[in-house]
Amino acid sequence: MSELPDGTAADGNSDIMQATYRALRDHGYADLTVQRIADEYGKSTAAIHYHYDTKEDLLAAFLDYLLARFVDAIRDIETTDPDARLSLLLDELLAKPAETQGLSVALLEMRSQAPYNDAFRERFAQNDEYVRYALKAVINHGIDEGAFADVDAERAAHALLSIADGGRTRAVVFDDMSELELARQTASEYVDATLR
Amino acid sequence: MSELPDGTAADGNSDIMQATYRALRDHGYADLTVQRIADEYGKSTAAIHYHYDTKEDLLAAFLDYLLARFVDAIRDIETTDPDARLSLLLDELLAKPAETQGLSVALLEMRSQAPYNDAFRERFAQNDEYVRYALKAVINHGIDEGAFADVDAERAAHALLSIADGGRTRAVVFDDMSELELARQTASEYVDATLR
Repeated sequence: MSELPDGTAADGNSDIMQATYRALRDHGYADLTVQRIADEYGKSTAAIHYHYDTKEDLLAAFLDYLLARFVDAIRDIETTDPDARLSLLLDELLAKPAETQGLSVALLEMRSQAPYNDAFRERFAQNDEYVRYALKAVINHGIDEGAFADVDAERAAHALLSIADGGRTRAVVFDDMSELELARQTASEYVDATLR
Repeated sequence: MSELPDGTAADGNSDIMQATYRALRDHGYADLTVQRIADEYGKSTAAIHYHYDTKEDLLAAFLDYLLARFVDAIRDIETTDPDARLSLLLDELLAKPAETQGLSVALLEMRSQAPYNDAFRERFAQNDEYVRYALKAVINHGIDEGAFADVDAERAAHALLSIADGGRTRAVVFDDMSELELARQTASEYVDATLR
C-alpha cells in the first residue's frame, strides 16, 4: 500500500502521520530528519514543529498512530469463532504486504533503540500488551467454548507473540519475506500442538 | 562474565576483540567510536587502525570473532545423544547470563542495520546458517537413531531458530531477561510437539 489505511482513531494530524510513514519507509530511522518528513508533508518543518516539539515526540505519536491502526484492524475482524479469529489475528501479525517492508526495517531500528529511549520503549510495551491481550482473549474464549484445550492462555499468547517477533526480526535482518510465512506456519504448529 | 571466553579460533587480535566487546557492552552500537574501543584497549586509535581501516571493518571482524566463539562452544558439547545435544544447543542459544545483556542490546542495533550494511548482513547470515546447520544435524541424527519423528529437519531447525530470535529480540526491547526463558520453554514445547 502507498498509504496506511485511514482509521476512526485518527488524531487530527493524519497527514503528518502519513508523511512520517512514507519518510520512515523510504529513508529508515537512522537517516530520518524532520526536513524529510516536511518534504513528504509538503509544508515547512515549522508546520511540523507547530504540532510536535521534537522528532522524538513526533515518532512517539507515530507509534501511537500505528497502534491505533492495529486496534482498528482487529476491531474489523468480524468473526467470533475462536479458531477463525485466532487465525486472522496471527495473519494480521505476520502477513505483511511487501510494500510495507520499508516500515518494518524502520520499526526494527526503533525497537533496537528502546533500551535508550523511554518513549519508544513505553509505546512498544503498550503495543505488545494490547496484542497479547487480544490473543489471550480469543484463546480464553476458545477454552470456554470447548474449542481449545484448557491451557494457560496468557502463556500461550506470549509464546505466539514471541514466535511472531522472531519471524518479523528475521524478515528484516535477512531481507527475506518468507521468514514471515515460516513464522506463521510455526505459530499454526504451536496452536495445533498446544491448543487442540 | 567480564571477558568473553578465549577460544582456539583466536585471530591474533584477541585483545582488540575483547576491548570491542567491552565498548559495545557498555556504550551500545550507535554511540560506539574507535576512541572508546582504544580506551578499553589501552592504546591509541592508531594502534587499532593499524589492524582495521575502519570502524565497520573492526565490527565485521568482531562478528566473525563472536561466531568463532559460538562454534567453539558448540564443539565443547560432548554428548552425542540427540535429545541431550539438541537441548544443550537450545540452552546455548537462549540461556544468556545477565552480564552479557549489554552485548545483546548492541547486537540488536547491529542486526537492525543489516539492511543498510552488507558486511553486517553477510556475517549475520553466515552465523545463522551455521546455527541452523548445527540444529539440523542433531535433528537428523535423532531421526536416524529413532529418537525423533521423521520430520523435515531443515524446517524444524528453522522454526526453532525463529523462536530463539523472537525471545532474544523481546529480551532487548522490553529489557526483560525472562523473555529468554519463555522462548526456551516454547522451543521445548515445539520439540515435544513435532519431534516426538
